[in-house]
Amino acid sequence: MPLSPHASIGIALDEVDTPALVLDMDALERNLLRMADAVKGSGVRLRPHAKSHKCAEIARRQIAAGAVGVCCQKVSEAEALAQGGVADVLVTNEIVGKQKLARLARLVREAKVDVLVEVNVGADRCGIEPGEPALALARRIAALGNLRFAGLHAYHGSAQHLRGAEERRAAIAAASEKAHVTKALIERAGIACETVTGAGTGTFLLESSSRVFNEIQPGSYVFMDADYNRNVWEEGWPRFEQSLFVLATVMSTPASDRAVLDAGLKASSVDSGMPLVHERPGAEYVKASDEHGILKIAVGAKAPKLGEKLLLVPGHCDPTVNLYDSFVCVRRGKVEALWPVSARGAVW
Amino acid sequence: MPLSPHASIGIALDEVDTPALVLDMDALERNLLRMADAVKGSGVRLRPHAKSHKCAEIARRQIAAGAVGVCCQKVSEAEALAQGGVADVLVTNEIVGKQKLARLARLVREAKVDVLVEVNVGADRCGIEPGEPALALARRIAALGNLRFAGLHAYHGSAQHLRGAEERRAAIAAASEKAHVTKALIERAGIACETVTGAGTGTFLLESSSRVFNEIQPGSYVFMDADYNRNVWEEGWPRFEQSLFVLATVMSTPASDRAVLDAGLKASSVDSGMPLVHERPGAEYVKASDEHGILKIAVGAKAPKLGEKLLLVPGHCDPTVNLYDSFVCVRRGKVEALWPVSARGAVW
Repeated sequence: MPLSPHASIGIALDEVDTPALVLDMDALERNLLRMADAVKGSGVRLRPHAKSHKCAEIARRQIAAGAVGVCCQKVSEAEALAQGGVADVLVTNEIVGKQKLARLARLVREAKVDVLVEVNVGADRCGIEPGEPALALARRIAALGNLRFAGLHAYHGSAQHLRGAEERRAAIAAASEKAHVTKALIERAGIACETVTGAGTGTFLLESSSRVFNEIQPGSYVFMDADYNRNVWEEGWPRFEQSLFVLATVMSTPASDRAVLDAGLKASSVDSGMPLVHERPGAEYVKASDEHGILKIAVGAKAPKLGEKLLLVPGHCDPTVNLYDSFVCVRRGKVEALWPVSARGAVW
Repeated sequence: MPLSPHASIGIALDEVDTPALVLDMDALERNLLRMADAVKGSGVRLRPHAKSHKCAEIARRQIAAGAVGVCCQKVSEAEALAQGGVADVLVTNEIVGKQKLARLARLVREAKVDVLVEVNVGADRCGIEPGEPALALARRIAALGNLRFAGLHAYHGSAQHLRGAEERRAAIAAASEKAHVTKALIERAGIACETVTGAGTGTFLLESSSRVFNEIQPGSYVFMDADYNRNVWEEGWPRFEQSLFVLATVMSTPASDRAVLDAGLKASSVDSGMPLVHERPGAEYVKASDEHGILKIAVGAKAPKLGEKLLLVPGHCDPTVNLYDSFVCVRRGKVEALWPVSARGAVW
């Protein structure tokens, strides 16, 4: 038996029960167009990362807007997206363990299996070192009959959230150089290296103009979040809008300088900082416990009323989406659709 | 179509696909017995908090071990637990908004509705101030024909994680005094105040011996977590065991001082600190990104092998459980059951 739904199509945003994950459809659609425009004419393929949204509906819209397919991080995400009708999925992550490999083999039973070598281009997380170690691994893959070496995965995750445009530019210049050197070495050894893929929302224009990368993987641009919004963007960088929100209710107003929301850390991830209260100057979300969010109300600021609903901008979009079973899709103040988070909890 | 399962009954723990939420059944059962023993003879009712486990199977076992019922935080949690056969549920939280009240009314259509007044006994979160303000609210409730004033909810959340036993003792002494004064005031006004309920895993023996509280609500004791394990427990305090783990696979060993796990912040909540690597000295979980956990390996420590599976102790049990659809219940190294997290994502 399903639980009471917290929204139904046609109701007003203010009637949605809370906490709820709200998607501003107009802003989402503008973000999809902005990314398509930014990539157009660059000769670079757009393969957005679906780990941010985990939603087959959004993946299909990204592909309709020009993406060649999507990325995901986990075999179970790939399974969920494939079941949702997404035909071209790149798992941008090491796949280790016989269960996962067996599941992946089942998933691609009728497809060729392209394999990329992940290169450590500066994130110091996973990935083989660039140059000779990467070449040696490419040789081993190329020698196997049932795998095809397709290129390099060169994602610099930690560069995405460097705050200054110059810092990001320097990090991606170094990453591109490492990818370039490795690609050239592999090609000199007689092995084709078709794809160099990587990049995120914080840096994708740098990779796409590098002449090294021919595929980019931004994910968060569809939604944005408080953490990405703290980046300083250089002139000419596409301005993606906040389209993802958590709708919360003021559940207690115990003091003039304090209000309590019904959205805590099970409703909005706090790993990259607290959520922000949207368009409500003087109301600061200062503390999250499991089910409560404490707002500090500045002197002279508009006092939140008991029962009032407020929109929060999540600190980090990816893990926040992963908390919810559906997006409440809203256009001009009304619920237009409920989209399942198809791969929610698909972490294995 | 369901995704590939990550475990099936009878397989060995090491064959469970990862990340997975693992429950050590022997430790869980010992924790249930230890709590029953600790409460026995105190005259205090045990009503464990189900926000920690969100699982009807565990709630039923708590009731079988002597609990009068369970608590939850959200109407949707109450719905999920009621559907799972749990008949006595206290929602320990303000319920604000017409949708929530309508849902609650449907849920209790054939029950009396007991209402508690939440009193701020020191947490400075929700709750009315003790003394006269609480009395005024109790009077309003008592005057309504279809509600019954049943007592006080006096939970001191922030006291649970004060590290020193003396600090916790002082905080609960102050909270008990506030609850006592308020109860006495209400009773002098001719209104019965049957229940004073509160307490958590960090302090429950203090409330149960206070002569003010007659019901306690510990939740985390069934699982424990890294944050609770940092509390210093006084002599004679029941020692609850870690029963909850996240099983993770070593997915990359890129350097002698670094290994990477496939369990990041979508697999183990980091709001109260990083997870700990269980029984693996010299391996420290130092950084979580969405899908990766970075281990720092000390000089001379046993090096994690690629594909090796490690158990993590979550930093905070409640939000970690809320990430998973099921518990993989393990006894003596074998999967004994898969229990649904009945109220996963039930935040509204």
